[in-house]
Amino acid sequence: MTQDPLPESKIPNMPPRILLGPGPSQAHPRVLQAMAVPMIGYLDPDFMLILDEVSELLKRVFKTEESLTMSLSGTGSAGMEAGFTSLLEPGDTVVMCVYGFFCERMIDMAERVGANVIPLRAAWGKPFPPEMLEEELKKHDNVKMVTAIHAETSTGIRQPLEAISNLAKEHDALFMVDAVTSLGGNEVAVDRWGIDYAYSASQKCLACPPGLAPVALSPRAHEVVKARQRKPMSWYLDLALNANYWKGHVYHHTAPVSNIVGLREGLKIVLEEGLEARFQRHHRNAQALWAGLEALGLDLVAPDGSRLDQITPVWIPSGIDDDRVRQILLREYSIEIGKGLGEFAGKVWRIGLMGESSKAEYVLSLLSALEGILPRLGYEVPRGAGVGAASTALAD
Amino acid sequence: MTQDPLPESKIPNMPPRILLGPGPSQAHPRVLQAMAVPMIGYLDPDFMLILDEVSELLKRVFKTEESLTMSLSGTGSAGMEAGFTSLLEPGDTVVMCVYGFFCERMIDMAERVGANVIPLRAAWGKPFPPEMLEEELKKHDNVKMVTAIHAETSTGIRQPLEAISNLAKEHDALFMVDAVTSLGGNEVAVDRWGIDYAYSASQKCLACPPGLAPVALSPRAHEVVKARQRKPMSWYLDLALNANYWKGHVYHHTAPVSNIVGLREGLKIVLEEGLEARFQRHHRNAQALWAGLEALGLDLVAPDGSRLDQITPVWIPSGIDDDRVRQILLREYSIEIGKGLGEFAGKVWRIGLMGESSKAEYVLSLLSALEGILPRLGYEVPRGAGVGAASTALAD
Repeated sequence: MTQDPLPESKIPNMPPRILLGPGPSQAHPRVLQAMAVPMIGYLDPDFMLILDEVSELLKRVFKTEESLTMSLSGTGSAGMEAGFTSLLEPGDTVVMCVYGFFCERMIDMAERVGANVIPLRAAWGKPFPPEMLEEELKKHDNVKMVTAIHAETSTGIRQPLEAISNLAKEHDALFMVDAVTSLGGNEVAVDRWGIDYAYSASQKCLACPPGLAPVALSPRAHEVVKARQRKPMSWYLDLALNANYWKGHVYHHTAPVSNIVGLREGLKIVLEEGLEARFQRHHRNAQALWAGLEALGLDLVAPDGSRLDQITPVWIPSGIDDDRVRQILLREYSIEIGKGLGEFAGKVWRIGLMGESSKAEYVLSLLSALEGILPRLGYEVPRGAGVGAASTALAD
Repeated sequence: MTQDPLPESKIPNMPPRILLGPGPSQAHPRVLQAMAVPMIGYLDPDFMLILDEVSELLKRVFKTEESLTMSLSGTGSAGMEAGFTSLLEPGDTVVMCVYGFFCERMIDMAERVGANVIPLRAAWGKPFPPEMLEEELKKHDNVKMVTAIHAETSTGIRQPLEAISNLAKEHDALFMVDAVTSLGGNEVAVDRWGIDYAYSASQKCLACPPGLAPVALSPRAHEVVKARQRKPMSWYLDLALNANYWKGHVYHHTAPVSNIVGLREGLKIVLEEGLEARFQRHHRNAQALWAGLEALGLDLVAPDGSRLDQITPVWIPSGIDDDRVRQILLREYSIEIGKGLGEFAGKVWRIGLMGESSKAEYVLSLLSALEGILPRLGYEVPRGAGVGAASTALAD
């Protein structure tokens, strides 16, 4: 039997990119190398030692001694869904602090599992006011869970979590936190902040390829999953079954061994740099970016003091074509930045400086590129002012 | 702030293994190399070309021109769950042909999404009799879906699918097929066999690391997902949303770009070898294994004519310690084989010869190892008989 010849690849080799979008960010070369080793079985006794090590490293990165830490076999959104499908039963009430695109995704997911969803919608681009939650919780006596996003990448807001956590605790509710963009770039203190379920993603500040969702599950939340009346709607993302594999080494599904070995390397790199040093690096480079953008006359979405170091949404100047700028950046400068989502679509660019992508040279390259591009499109900027201001900030 | 030193890795380097279990099988070195290239954005226009190419290559491997082909961002079980959560609504009737461990997993998943599940349990270790389905379908007038597993890895049975498909069609039901272990090792003819939803996994006969579930969705099944009254319970595994990303390039979740680039390479390797040649290789090496095991006096679970080439369950001789043999194989010979599942736990070993693991040298090494191990544990075998018989079969 003859076969048709293979179609010719339009992209035989992956083009080089400077990834300054919302993720994936650059993967660390050591992670890529670690992932390229030959396969091993997902129940191999030696691989069980690797699982244990990853779990231990995650405890340090999540700052938890109490919680069970593991990675789920999907991207960050799988971590989000695992929380809803495992911690909520149909009819359970969940109160959601909503202040961006990914908060809206949470609502969709929780509704799908049949929860009684109470969204508290606050303005985008500002931290969520805990008073709003306090008011709402007074009206209910049976709230099962409260949710918040630590780092809303659609708005660039860093959300303080302790006040929200305290309110959840006062009302005996579980506290679920999206740490997708924050973990490894900002402090995430699971125990100190009383987080019952936190999930993250491998491809942002942990500098691994996308495909895994590291999570931390508190003893209380773990009990809730185990004591369910009816099984979670998802078998694949059932936190109890996944925990049985990570802790009891009981077969669940074929774990993505290469990605897990890569995550181990990524976590080691995070801890070798040191959490505090890593947070400071993210902050320093972000400050340089902010200074540079402002020197070009651009306005940042998030107010000073509430800004995420990992991702900076910036208002697109009026008259400037969103797509065009991103296309030129990609094709002429090999730089990817992110577009706006939801109500910010077409209105903002989102510039990520996460993990391996948080580097001074990338900040300078991007600002220099913008100094070249924007005037071509009719938006005059003081040439050199962006890189100058960034350079000054970096030297401080 | 000082930090505790990192825990010392117990397994700093991945130990070499010959993987003859139920998967992951050996990954092709070209796949591992392809995955080690720097990251690219999941909405990058160049990555969209890679998505299109993977989709096109999958069409050839699934033998479909009609179906939408893509990979889901999870392992094979995620592909299974995506079918139930997307194609069934609560109360929908699904009739399941059940003849092994993974068929039982299907029941669990379908029950979780609230379907009316009718399991037709037939004996393990034999093909499912279509008459059983025919009888059952006569009793209902509203069956939404019929399911079957092409290659039940718990029993080693290759299930003919056309009779089952015809019955499903006669009753206007969707036909969902598990092709996790068969795709790339046996013919899977989606169009010719009238399969509405087929899912597979990257880590078996496609010789990629685990982490992706390639799927094929017929136009009819796609319509069913789009026309649902209520959204699928899973957002992450919603086939319509995933299809929007693969075909419409609309953001859904951060796709695991490295795994997808690896899958592209794996599919190219499959098609370069040629599907027929690849199936023949799997069959030739399996025949050699069967001849060798039988020459050692071991009994195979599946009857000749219904055996899978990819995985061979073999009865453990009485008095022989299951764990002990697998431990010695792993520690002294670096060979992994699989254990029994469900009602076959402790009773069978499962020997996989899939993708890059389907090689004559591995067949001979395993038989030679068994010739050395079994007599040490009190089960005498005619020395050299296993490798002799395998070698003869290979030469034929």
